[in-house]
Amino acid sequence: MSPNATNATAEERLRDLGIDLPHPPAPFGAYVEAVQTGNLLFLSGTLPLEGGIPKFVGRIGGDLSMEDGRRAAYLATLNALAAARAHLRSLDRVMRVVRLAVSLVTTPEFREHARVADAASELLGTVFGADRKSTRMVYGMGSLAVGVCVVVELIFEVRM
Amino acid sequence: MSPNATNATAEERLRDLGIDLPHPPAPFGAYVEAVQTGNLLFLSGTLPLEGGIPKFVGRIGGDLSMEDGRRAAYLATLNALAAARAHLRSLDRVMRVVRLAVSLVTTPEFREHARVADAASELLGTVFGADRKSTRMVYGMGSLAVGVCVVVELIFEVRM
Amino acid sequence: MSPNATNATAEERLRDLGIDLPHPPAPFGAYVEAVQTGNLLFLSGTLPLEGGIPKFVGRIGGDLSMEDGRRAAYLATLNALAAARAHLRSLDRVMRVVRLAVSLVTTPEFREHARVADAASELLGTVFGADRKSTRMVYGMGSLAVGVCVVVELIFEVRM
Repeated sequence: MSPNATNATAEERLRDLGIDLPHPPAPFGAYVEAVQTGNLLFLSGTLPLEGGIPKFVGRIGGDLSMEDGRRAAYLATLNALAAARAHLRSLDRVMRVVRLAVSLVTTPEFREHARVADAASELLGTVFGADRKSTRMVYGMGSLAVGVCVVVELIFEVRM
Repeated sequence: MSPNATNATAEERLRDLGIDLPHPPAPFGAYVEAVQTGNLLFLSGTLPLEGGIPKFVGRIGGDLSMEDGRRAAYLATLNALAAARAHLRSLDRVMRVVRLAVSLVTTPEFREHARVADAASELLGTVFGADRKSTRMVYGMGSLAVGVCVVVELIFEVRM
Repeated sequence: MSPNATNATAEERLRDLGIDLPHPPAPFGAYVEAVQTGNLLFLSGTLPLEGGIPKFVGRIGGDLSMEDGRRAAYLATLNALAAARAHLRSLDRVMRVVRLAVSLVTTPEFREHARVADAASELLGTVFGADRKSTRMVYGMGSLAVGVCVVVELIFEVRM
């Protein structure tokens, strides 16, 4: 089935595109990665982890380029999808991405927040379908945990 | 009907006060302005747009005054109301503003975050009634998209 | 009953541990401290208040130590619990902490965001039980209202 077929499921699209999700992130504190209440699934803030190691430490527009920022946003979103699958068992239970918050650390004069966040939005659109786009907010932080340049935060509507 | 009449609707209040909402904002990326799940309506982060152009670029307490910040918060909230109306067709379907997050870019020594955010809260109180006030959080960011000094983020409870 | 007994209620645990909640915070603007929609309770951002006075003004990693940050996170969480109790009448109606967002003001090079936020998470775990941990996100802000170094923001699932 083509990844663009509107009736392909999220898991089918991931498989067809050859996207392997990483191991789901583990909490580094007294919290959990996902809480479901009713049919809303809240995820914890997710870092750009590779093999469990935080990548893309620095500031976008400074020591990190916009392309680095986009790769970091993509990687953090892959980790978030892994956390969601670990909770739901299958991403096919996702009905909708309700809210995507992308938090960045940038230089003060950086302006291209939207282009960085698009790397997260585009991955979600590829997986869940362009007709199920989320709301989005993009924030430039003063600092983030362990110095990473991106954290993503997601709320999903899921099938019970 | 007086705008202060407790039984006036949100649309009646806007009309009586002569408040014209702007054209609803258009996404500048792979997201949508509003997603409804059950009776919760989530909006994307909304900028202070005038005719679709971002206004109030700078830092509150620096090149922008507190009054500029308040005008920016008011303008961003007008845009958010326009986005909500575009989704709901009528703001009369809003039962409650659940959450208002106001994100500011200020100088480090600025302290009057609450007074800036009040410009957003007061507009919402005028439109939806003082008995239906929202929760609120105000954050001083490091930077925001395209350099604006305010973004507002809203969650509404709506009538199905 | 021992505070560690899994069948102790939140109010019993607070009593057994001798934790007195402060007076609930009062809004300093046109908003309210809590809004319930369905079985979700949203709280406003809560500051580290002592007798209603903001404490821990400054930056973590600079004029404030990590221990100061942890005390501020603990104190802000106590205030949030007081706000939740004021709305619910009893914290025993809390089924789950859904989302804990901890916003910090730190020096740019600070990295220990998670350890500061743990002070909030650990208090919630003590009160509501380690089996009901929340999702969590930790953000380093540019500035916060009245200069405090921590604001916490909570969403609860509650019994109707």
